[in-house]
Amino acid sequence: MNDNNSLVEAFKQTKYKVAGHGTRNIQILKEALKDIDGKQESDVYGKGKIIEDFQEKMAKYLGKEAAVFFPSGTMAQQIALRIWCDKKGLKKVAYHPLCHLEIHEEDGLKELHQIEPILLADKNSLIQLEDVVRMEENIACLLLELPQREIGGQLPEYKTLEDISTYCHEKGIKLHLDGARLFEILPYYEKSAAEICDLFDSVYVSFYKGIGGIAGAILAGNQSFTNESKVWKRRHGGDLISLYPYILSADYFFDQRVEKMKKYYEEAKDLAGLFNQCHGVSTQPSEPVSNMFHVHFAAPKEEMEVILSGIYQETGIGLTSNIKGISKTTCYFELSIGEMYAQTPKEEVKNVIHLLDQKIRGISNI
Amino acid sequence: MNDNNSLVEAFKQTKYKVAGHGTRNIQILKEALKDIDGKQESDVYGKGKIIEDFQEKMAKYLGKEAAVFFPSGTMAQQIALRIWCDKKGLKKVAYHPLCHLEIHEEDGLKELHQIEPILLADKNSLIQLEDVVRMEENIACLLLELPQREIGGQLPEYKTLEDISTYCHEKGIKLHLDGARLFEILPYYEKSAAEICDLFDSVYVSFYKGIGGIAGAILAGNQSFTNESKVWKRRHGGDLISLYPYILSADYFFDQRVEKMKKYYEEAKDLAGLFNQCHGVSTQPSEPVSNMFHVHFAAPKEEMEVILSGIYQETGIGLTSNIKGISKTTCYFELSIGEMYAQTPKEEVKNVIHLLDQKIRGISNI
Repeated sequence: MNDNNSLVEAFKQTKYKVAGHGTRNIQILKEALKDIDGKQESDVYGKGKIIEDFQEKMAKYLGKEAAVFFPSGTMAQQIALRIWCDKKGLKKVAYHPLCHLEIHEEDGLKELHQIEPILLADKNSLIQLEDVVRMEENIACLLLELPQREIGGQLPEYKTLEDISTYCHEKGIKLHLDGARLFEILPYYEKSAAEICDLFDSVYVSFYKGIGGIAGAILAGNQSFTNESKVWKRRHGGDLISLYPYILSADYFFDQRVEKMKKYYEEAKDLAGLFNQCHGVSTQPSEPVSNMFHVHFAAPKEEMEVILSGIYQETGIGLTSNIKGISKTTCYFELSIGEMYAQTPKEEVKNVIHLLDQKIRGISNI
Repeated sequence: MNDNNSLVEAFKQTKYKVAGHGTRNIQILKEALKDIDGKQESDVYGKGKIIEDFQEKMAKYLGKEAAVFFPSGTMAQQIALRIWCDKKGLKKVAYHPLCHLEIHEEDGLKELHQIEPILLADKNSLIQLEDVVRMEENIACLLLELPQREIGGQLPEYKTLEDISTYCHEKGIKLHLDGARLFEILPYYEKSAAEICDLFDSVYVSFYKGIGGIAGAILAGNQSFTNESKVWKRRHGGDLISLYPYILSADYFFDQRVEKMKKYYEEAKDLAGLFNQCHGVSTQPSEPVSNMFHVHFAAPKEEMEVILSGIYQETGIGLTSNIKGISKTTCYFELSIGEMYAQTPKEEVKNVIHLLDQKIRGISNI
């Protein structure tokens, strides 16, 4: 068993996990279904009360004319960019170098849609207005991801968003929001979802991150955009006869958790503060702007796996099961606060942080 | 309210429906989940026990090296054809003019994959060996749909399948099976699924037709083919974090119903026999070769909607909610036998057929 497997095993055995909403098991679906009348009829190929009601609810929440439920964000976002490219007759878009479409989708955008992305900004930085203005190539659409997940969930100033939106509007560039974690950033910006979405022509939101549903996404925009997206949804093989398992669970957990994002955000700031007190540990961002942040270690991945496995066994508290190496001497993990954090005894968390500090100090080479 | 709405309403009010497995409602998912341990963990992006076990079970059942679960057949089949086209470096395939990819997928194959289909055979006929041999163009893959759904679910002779398979193998043409209703045709051919699939390089099967699951499909073939299909599944946006609602229900209803296909087939032959005794009514095929057939009326759609609505109200037995016009004087509907037929009193069915015969005779113009 290598260290990573040891870490996974040690994590599984812990009594408490500080992050997330708990194990992704079948109980999540059972819970979402428990009060649903079995006689309620399925959606059928995008039609029917279940899907139409939820789409309408989300369109209203996001302040857009219409919304379409998709099985995945991967599908929804490729389609959004394709529609804007076709409208302009130009198969070029721009996004961050660590955009989901660039690094997690096996180049679907290029392979299925022949769309060429321009990568904006350094991969460790956020896209700023000047990156957009300086861009020499003409594009059909700019995608902004809020928060920028792969760099710890950072956010630009709200003014920056407004300026980029104004600039794009003037230049005839469509602005698309990758809002996989849109609900999670509302407390920081102190804005409603509709206020933020008003800066964008189209928006995608996810229901299995902060909301903790099973899978599924909403794509919203004006009526002609969403109508066209339904045609592409069928082409992609996403217009399933029944999407209700995802819709019902998305709706159930949305109602339960969308108002808890401020609590998760405050808890994330508390926990990040504790990590930042440890020797050789820092969070990115240093103060979180949502429920998520990255924890960076000035130590090799393999050593941290051993240290963390030991701490999990000693305390029964799990921080993560997945450490990613950055260099030979640094590594990190991602942490998103959900329901689990409130259930974890805070004295125990402090004990974990104390042990972490001690053990990292104990490593000779840092 | 137009006649079609009247028919839908009258159908809904009937006590018995002769076709299908019953209303597609949430109870279907609840039933599939009721004995599943809530602690069982979700599949995660195509990995985990739930998805891997089911894929292995289906690979074995279909006699193929490996199988991959997809959210939809639309996605699975486009991907199958794309892989075979890429392998040969030739973006041409052949299929029937009423192939699902040609008429129900908004041209996804062309728009997303730039694959050109050659349409084989007349739309009202099955593809025969001579259609394949006579084809002048070179193709990467031939798709056969068994049974050919849009013409009532017809099947070629088994010898024809063997001959086409041999011919394609000799010519370096891959043979793909659209087996959306593969389980349903095994009793007629008196073959195992593996025996039929052995004639094909790749096969897709569906779990919400005869099996009556919620949605989802399996694509099977050799290991390198299925590995490549997983990359495309991600590109299409089908590699969901959790597909278990579909997998668990597919597995549950597969176990319940795959052995009932012979019963459904025999019942389809019985019911088709009754229809064929009616004046102005004929089934396609005249004797069904699976659980499905089409019922053709030598009468206009609008008149049949009125007649059927009346019969539903009089007898409480529903035949269909959806009549399709063919010409000004002819129309038809599709019927697939499932669990509902056995629950319908046979005396009442005979009464319906008797009324149908009387009322069609009563129409002056036929």
